[in-house]
Amino acid sequence: MAKVLSGAGLRGQVAGKTALSTVGKSGSGLTYRGYDVKDLAQNCQFEEVAYLILRGKLPTQAELNAYKARLKTLRGLPQALKDVLERIPADAHPMDVLRTGCSMLGNLEQEMSFEQQQEVTERMLACFPSIICYWYRFSHDGERIEVETDDDSIGGHFLHMLLGSVPRELHEQVMHVSLILYAEHEFNASTFTARVCASTLSDMHSCITGAIGSLRGPLHGGANEAAMEMIEGFTSADHAEQEMMGKLERKEKIMGFGHAIYSESDPRNEIIKGWSEKLAADVGDTVLYPVSVRCEEVMKREKGLFCNADFFHASAYHFMGIPTKLFTPIFVMSRLTGWAAHVMEQRADNRIIRPSAEYTGEELRAVTPISQRG
Amino acid sequence: MAKVLSGAGLRGQVAGKTALSTVGKSGSGLTYRGYDVKDLAQNCQFEEVAYLILRGKLPTQAELNAYKARLKTLRGLPQALKDVLERIPADAHPMDVLRTGCSMLGNLEQEMSFEQQQEVTERMLACFPSIICYWYRFSHDGERIEVETDDDSIGGHFLHMLLGSVPRELHEQVMHVSLILYAEHEFNASTFTARVCASTLSDMHSCITGAIGSLRGPLHGGANEAAMEMIEGFTSADHAEQEMMGKLERKEKIMGFGHAIYSESDPRNEIIKGWSEKLAADVGDTVLYPVSVRCEEVMKREKGLFCNADFFHASAYHFMGIPTKLFTPIFVMSRLTGWAAHVMEQRADNRIIRPSAEYTGEELRAVTPISQRG
Repeated sequence: MAKVLSGAGLRGQVAGKTALSTVGKSGSGLTYRGYDVKDLAQNCQFEEVAYLILRGKLPTQAELNAYKARLKTLRGLPQALKDVLERIPADAHPMDVLRTGCSMLGNLEQEMSFEQQQEVTERMLACFPSIICYWYRFSHDGERIEVETDDDSIGGHFLHMLLGSVPRELHEQVMHVSLILYAEHEFNASTFTARVCASTLSDMHSCITGAIGSLRGPLHGGANEAAMEMIEGFTSADHAEQEMMGKLERKEKIMGFGHAIYSESDPRNEIIKGWSEKLAADVGDTVLYPVSVRCEEVMKREKGLFCNADFFHASAYHFMGIPTKLFTPIFVMSRLTGWAAHVMEQRADNRIIRPSAEYTGEELRAVTPISQRG
Repeated sequence: MAKVLSGAGLRGQVAGKTALSTVGKSGSGLTYRGYDVKDLAQNCQFEEVAYLILRGKLPTQAELNAYKARLKTLRGLPQALKDVLERIPADAHPMDVLRTGCSMLGNLEQEMSFEQQQEVTERMLACFPSIICYWYRFSHDGERIEVETDDDSIGGHFLHMLLGSVPRELHEQVMHVSLILYAEHEFNASTFTARVCASTLSDMHSCITGAIGSLRGPLHGGANEAAMEMIEGFTSADHAEQEMMGKLERKEKIMGFGHAIYSESDPRNEIIKGWSEKLAADVGDTVLYPVSVRCEEVMKREKGLFCNADFFHASAYHFMGIPTKLFTPIFVMSRLTGWAAHVMEQRADNRIIRPSAEYTGEELRAVTPISQRG
C-alpha cells in the first residue's frame, strides 16, 4: 500500500541522495560539496566552483586554466541555432528562448552516450550566454553579434556580448560572485525536474530543457525580476517605506523575502548585499540602494522576514546595466552547473522516479453510447 | 526532520492527488475518470477521450463535433516554426524535434494566463502531428508538406501527412484505439515531470516540453521502438523462439514486457494485440504477427512475464507503414492529453514540489588557496 505523505509538494520528504550540497543544515546555511558558499564566493571564481560541483574537487591553477581555456573554445553557435534564435520575437519570454535554444542544441549536438555528459555540460556552460545575448541583441537591436569573444570568464563573456564592450574588473568580479551564489541548491523544483527526467535515462539536453521550464515559474526563478520591478518604482527610502507599508496592509505578495527552507536568514544575502553597496558607490547611486536597504528594514520590522538571495541581486544587476528581463536567464547560466551535476548523480545510482497518487475521482462507470449522453 | 522513504524513485509513495486515472486498482487495470480503458477503446474515438480527460466528461455528439471542428482549424504551423523544423537534421532524435517544436511554439504563441490553458492544449493536440510530419517529410524526403488537411481525426491527419494519402478506415480506427490506450497513466515519470514544472506555476509549454524530454528516456517511452527493432530481426516464429532463448540465456534486456505497476497483465495488451492481428490479416502478413505471438509465449513460459502496451503496438504501427522512429512521437500525440490535464489539476490545488535529499557528501571544510591545491 502507498503511504500517504504528511505534506503537499513532498515538503520534508527525502526523494533521493545527494553529495552536492546542504541547505539550511546547522553551522552553515549553504554548502557545495562541503564548502560554505560564503567561503567560495570570497575566494573563488565561478569556473572554479563549476569545476568543483561538476567534477567533485576544487581545481589546481593548471586545471582551472585548462578548464577556462576549453570553455572559451565552446562559445560559438551553429548557424542553424542562430537561425532559430533570429525567428524568436523580441516580446518572447527570455526563459522560453533559452529553453528553445537548449532544446535546439540537443538536435544539433546530441548526447549519444553518458560518457559525453561532462563534454555536453561544458558546451552548455560556454554557450548559454551566447544564446541569450545573440537573441537579445538581434531581436532588440537588430544586431548579429559576435559571440566568440576572448573574455576570461563566463560572466565577462556575458556582459561583453550584452553591453558591447569589455566589462570592467569590478563587474566581472560581481558576476563571479553572483554565479557562485546561484550555482546549486539541492532538490529545488527545477533540479528535481532535471532528476526526474534523468531517471528515465533521457539525454542531458532534455533534463536541462525541462529544468529551465521549471525555473521559469514565478514561484521559483524570477523573484529578482519581481523585486526589481518593485524597487524601481520607489523614488526614495521614505517613499519605499510608505509604499511597502501600503502593500503589507493590502496583503500584496512581495518578492525577494523569506525562503521555503531557510527560516532565519539566507546566507547568500549578506554577500550580494555587500556587492550591491559597492556597485552603488561606484555608479554614485543615491536612490536604489537606500531604497533596497529600507525595504529590508521594513520587512524585518513588520513581518520578521529576511531578504533572500534574490533581493539585492536586483539592484546589483541593475547597477551593471543588465536589463531586468535577463535576470532569470543569468540564474540559468549559473544553476546549469547544479542541474547537470544532479543529472550525473542520478544516472550513477538510478531508479526511475515514479511516485503514486491518491485517487480522488469517479468510481468505475460504463461508457454511455454517444447518442444517449446528456 | 525529513522522513526517509522506504524505496528509491519514490516508488509506492503518494506525491499528490488525482481524479484523472487509476492504474492497477482492483476490478480494472486502467481507468480514465472512472471509465475502463477497454470500454473507451471499444466505444469511443480518441477525441472523445481527450475531451473526457481534459474537460471531465464524455462529450455529446454536438460537443464532439464542435471539438473536432475546432481542432481541425488549429493544424497549421507558423512560418517561424516551419523554419525551425527545416533546420533540424534528418538524423536528429524525433523526440528532440517534438521537444524543440513544442518549446518554439511557446515563443510564438505564449500562454499569457492560465485561463488560456484549454486553448493552448487544443492547439498542441492539433498541431503536434503537423510538427512531427513536417520535419519528417522535409528532412527525409525534401518535401514541404501541406499540414492543414481535412481529415476527420488526429490519427487520420497524422497518417495522411506521413504517408501522403487519405488513410483507410481500418487504419484511422487503429489510430483511435492506439491514441486512447496511451492517453493517460497517472504519475508516471513524464507526467510527474509535467506536474513538478506546473508546481512552479510555469506555463503549459514548459510543462509539456519537459514531459516530452522525460518520455524520451529509454526507461519510459521508446519500448515499442525497441520491440520493433527486435522482432523485425526474426524471420519466423521458430527463429524468434530460438533467438529469444539465447537472449534470455545471455540475460539481455528485452523490451515490451512487464510493468512497474501492473503485476499480472497490462490491460492494454489484449486490445492492441487484437488490432495487430486484424492488420496482419489485412496486409497478408505471415511473419511479424506470428513472431510477436511466439515472443509473448516464450516470455510467459520462461519468465512469467506478460506483454505490456508497447509490444503489439510495434507490429500494429509497422503494418500501417509507420517508420519505427516515429513510434514514440505518436505516444506524445496521445499522452499530451494526460500531461495537460495533470498540469491543470496541479494548478487548481498547488504547492510547489520541493522534496528534500539525504546528504551523503563531504563534511564542512575550508577552501584551500588555489596555489596550495594538490
